[in-house]
Amino acid sequence: MKFKRSERLIDLTHFIVENPNHIVPLTFFAERYQSAKSSISEDLAIIKQTFEQRGIGTLQTVPGAAGGVRFISRVQENDAKEIVKELCERLASADRLLPGGYLFMTDLLGNPSIMNKVGKLLASAFAEKEIDVIMTVATKGIPIAHAIANHLNVPVVIVRRDSKVTEGPTVSINYVSGSSKRIQTMVLSKRSLKEGSRVLIVDDFMKAGGTVHGMINLLEEFSATVAGIAVLMESENASERLVSDYISLVKLSNVDEREKRINVFEGNYFDSNLSFL
Amino acid sequence: MKFKRSERLIDLTHFIVENPNHIVPLTFFAERYQSAKSSISEDLAIIKQTFEQRGIGTLQTVPGAAGGVRFISRVQENDAKEIVKELCERLASADRLLPGGYLFMTDLLGNPSIMNKVGKLLASAFAEKEIDVIMTVATKGIPIAHAIANHLNVPVVIVRRDSKVTEGPTVSINYVSGSSKRIQTMVLSKRSLKEGSRVLIVDDFMKAGGTVHGMINLLEEFSATVAGIAVLMESENASERLVSDYISLVKLSNVDEREKRINVFEGNYFDSNLSFL
Repeated sequence: MKFKRSERLIDLTHFIVENPNHIVPLTFFAERYQSAKSSISEDLAIIKQTFEQRGIGTLQTVPGAAGGVRFISRVQENDAKEIVKELCERLASADRLLPGGYLFMTDLLGNPSIMNKVGKLLASAFAEKEIDVIMTVATKGIPIAHAIANHLNVPVVIVRRDSKVTEGPTVSINYVSGSSKRIQTMVLSKRSLKEGSRVLIVDDFMKAGGTVHGMINLLEEFSATVAGIAVLMESENASERLVSDYISLVKLSNVDEREKRINVFEGNYFDSNLSFL
Repeated sequence: MKFKRSERLIDLTHFIVENPNHIVPLTFFAERYQSAKSSISEDLAIIKQTFEQRGIGTLQTVPGAAGGVRFISRVQENDAKEIVKELCERLASADRLLPGGYLFMTDLLGNPSIMNKVGKLLASAFAEKEIDVIMTVATKGIPIAHAIANHLNVPVVIVRRDSKVTEGPTVSINYVSGSSKRIQTMVLSKRSLKEGSRVLIVDDFMKAGGTVHGMINLLEEFSATVAGIAVLMESENASERLVSDYISLVKLSNVDEREKRINVFEGNYFDSNLSFL
């Protein structure tokens, strides 16, 4: 079956978007479309240009025997600002306020379109870093971790509060929760993480950073290293922060339970050294 | 800024794939590309044809004032067979066997590329049904639920074993686990689910179906209804099945712990009344 250029462009775009951060050899596409490599190169050049102009991402050419073309999902600064603004507005709504100054965020974490945007933003921030795996803690970090993983094409491992038979042998540590100063346990399946893995730690909310700090300690037990830390929301009112080098999309600053007022601002995302398209 | 047809096709394809099951009015695209609606219609016709030929999905035209075009993600039967075969092969590997005849599946559930395929298969099966929300139980069902949600563009709600302060008021029920006959609790945030919602219930593994049955009971408390049930894996050796109408991708049939042998077959996915492309 022969393909017209328009059909190739459509199928190529779909394939590339479905397979971010995969290195795909040109020969794969040449066979798929029964076309000369030179035609495929021209197609890819058009796609690269359009992706960059529209703020979708970029195509990288990876040289060498195992080389090919790789789609890196990126966000333009304008679009990123829009997304963060939308998050702030949604999160600042008074009816999210729960006793103890907590915020109800479950609806946002369950919204696939918002999670895809959040995942793209945070994946963009770590696109240049070498990341082997994303780690989060059950339950609320999972949608964020998977949303990032969809763009970075790396596996997700999930730390739990308790061990389950379906996880096989586990490694467990105790840690001190930053805010409540209580001793807690976290558990990770031994098979989940290879020695030496570079790990992106992800969570939905960070106050003092006890949970994230616990995950860093857990990594040491696996001889793995921290490649980055990303949270959806940080709380400004943390007395003593246990974690310093992290990226947050939004920042919760004043929660007035009596007045039912919440202030949510941009996090430190735009302060960090990001390369926007 | 004027767009060439090739650029429009690339950006349109990206937009459509990123926004499955959204109805997008033609005027949106006409403004986005500063083009006549007739040109956009031609573009969309080429995309529809290519998507159908390549087994990517289809574009539906929704008439009326709130109308537009909607991308439905679909899988061709051949591709679906390939994916299920890959799942069977991966799951049948002897080193997955855990004490008690359980299978280690965590690596597959953490693999974004496999989850995307699983999500697309299960979303295809329910593309014609009216689904308002996907429900699963923490922790292992979450990646599957979100993978399906990405294609159906509906929110995910997560049932938990215990209630947490960040969930707000909750509804809790007791249920009898099908295999162990133990009384267990499941909890859902009251805000998560609107009355009358049509719910797709999703889980990673079903033996007797106690957990799924519990979720069905929980739906009654919310005056919500079951729109479908989907599991990644079912166990053939369930003495008494509490749930009858469900779709499974794979079926675990014989687990011989002494011989370290596992048999994994196709589930009932292909028996069901699916409309493949």
